[in-house]
Amino acid sequence: MHKEILKDIGEKELINRLGKFMPKNQVLDDCALIKTKNDSLLVNNDSLVENIHFNDITISPQDLGWKAVVSNISDLVSSGSKRTIGITISLILPPETEWVWVEELYRGINKALKKYGGIILGGDCSSGKQKTISITALGIQGELKLLRNACKPGEIILTTGIHGLSKLGFMVQNQITFGNDIFLSKKIISKSIEHFCRPKITQNFLKNLIKSRSNKKIKRIGCTDSSDGLFQALQDLAIASDCKAIINYEKIPKDKDWPEGDKWDEYYFFGGEDYQLVFSLPKKWANKLSKLDKNIKEIGFFTKGKGSIEFKDHKKNNILNNSPFKHF
Amino acid sequence: MHKEILKDIGEKELINRLGKFMPKNQVLDDCALIKTKNDSLLVNNDSLVENIHFNDITISPQDLGWKAVVSNISDLVSSGSKRTIGITISLILPPETEWVWVEELYRGINKALKKYGGIILGGDCSSGKQKTISITALGIQGELKLLRNACKPGEIILTTGIHGLSKLGFMVQNQITFGNDIFLSKKIISKSIEHFCRPKITQNFLKNLIKSRSNKKIKRIGCTDSSDGLFQALQDLAIASDCKAIINYEKIPKDKDWPEGDKWDEYYFFGGEDYQLVFSLPKKWANKLSKLDKNIKEIGFFTKGKGSIEFKDHKKNNILNNSPFKHF
Repeated sequence: MHKEILKDIGEKELINRLGKFMPKNQVLDDCALIKTKNDSLLVNNDSLVENIHFNDITISPQDLGWKAVVSNISDLVSSGSKRTIGITISLILPPETEWVWVEELYRGINKALKKYGGIILGGDCSSGKQKTISITALGIQGELKLLRNACKPGEIILTTGIHGLSKLGFMVQNQITFGNDIFLSKKIISKSIEHFCRPKITQNFLKNLIKSRSNKKIKRIGCTDSSDGLFQALQDLAIASDCKAIINYEKIPKDKDWPEGDKWDEYYFFGGEDYQLVFSLPKKWANKLSKLDKNIKEIGFFTKGKGSIEFKDHKKNNILNNSPFKHF
Repeated sequence: MHKEILKDIGEKELINRLGKFMPKNQVLDDCALIKTKNDSLLVNNDSLVENIHFNDITISPQDLGWKAVVSNISDLVSSGSKRTIGITISLILPPETEWVWVEELYRGINKALKKYGGIILGGDCSSGKQKTISITALGIQGELKLLRNACKPGEIILTTGIHGLSKLGFMVQNQITFGNDIFLSKKIISKSIEHFCRPKITQNFLKNLIKSRSNKKIKRIGCTDSSDGLFQALQDLAIASDCKAIINYEKIPKDKDWPEGDKWDEYYFFGGEDYQLVFSLPKKWANKLSKLDKNIKEIGFFTKGKGSIEFKDHKKNNILNNSPFKHF
């Protein structure tokens, strides 16, 4: 069966078709219009490039659309966004791209927006060699500002969930084999593919954060997401906040079927794309919050010192010598 | 001399360097924060792809940075933005890109922002095969809404200036020859390069529009910019507003040294990237405005009928048979 490709459709008809993915009341114009009510807005921008961030073998276009939205909304949430207004989508696609690929991408985008809120505000499409999805997401700042530079010595470091599964999912999709000494259960394999292809955003995080706060004067929290891996997230917090993160390896939440060994520590800390939140809170607040949400785990604390990471168990400090997530 | 390339710099250091192009009070975080005061915001998104929209032969990185900003701000102005808040920049660059290229690009970006207002709100950078600059611009909606679908039968069609020069500049930069029967003055050649490499935005347009308005009840004006060419702009207005544009070829403002002939009509109407505004107004308002700004010219009028374009001089209707600006 001959599949329709973009070159056959032509630019005018393509823009016309893309317009149909937008909400009915939205007019395709030079700009999108957003009404605000004395709100502060959060803006985030993220690009996914073919063969750098994704390829047709490891992820379907529908999953890719979902993931592109999640990666942007995760950045909004990790800054304290209480509601996503919407996204603009800038696509670059080779003329040989099949139209069904674009449809599937938008299906994934719209599924994620339906789940996490927000609409398509606009977008454009250009021809190019590599498929590229560049999304700009807009959200409304809630009452707590979540910033990389707001961690303080003495605060407890927490994370909303398990890391490394997305990296494992990526490797499974690439049919990488792990050697005979490694046993991976069916459960962890399907879970890891799910984490890689359809990552989730921790919902109710901000609500629970506010609910568990006893000191209403605190308006700024140190936080980021682990899109580039747990290690990178910790390092970004430590450097921006200029304090030292002491990590308790034993407390790191792992999947119960996660294998042991240096290689698996590396996948865990440098894998990326897990979209968990990594943040710090005063002890009392941290305790209250982890009772409200059982997935939230304490993994260490911040102390005075140069912006850096140290493991409580010194033998584990060799993890730090591994090279982080690298795109260039 | 060995020039430093991105691959040698590495991702972390690169992000660090890019952060230095941002205003001092701006913190590099997951999101940028914008304070609004009951304003409505305009959002626009535009990507420039190497070998589709630009190449290293025809335009310098500094000019490219300027042009990327102008193309986005032009979209904001053509929607009625009274002030540009800022832009986010998403770069995709091959690892072999020289650092000096990035610096020059940002120099051009910052020059255009200094001239037309707005700051760099944030951005990211990924590796990829083709240089791509994707900008999202945010502006504040002024009291007049400029929309493609707000033209009305009986209104005069106007444009803020001359078209075709950018296309000529592009051809000159590509060393295209025009045949012995065509004489191009030094003046039009340097002007066309200027239009292609350093396009300008019509300033004070909105102020003059409001100044010349006698009926304060009119809040919506039919308008778009000619980034994809005058013909495309007229067609977008006619189709979105569902009325027929009658164009008076004799009134089209041309550079005094612009050659005659079918080919040159084609360059004029389909060239693109002139960033002039194309809009329609009631007769009285149109007259008043063109007295305030001598560059603004009446070029025709809208009448009842199917969304389409017709030339008053029927011999000129063959222009319509030429194929429009095409990227796919």
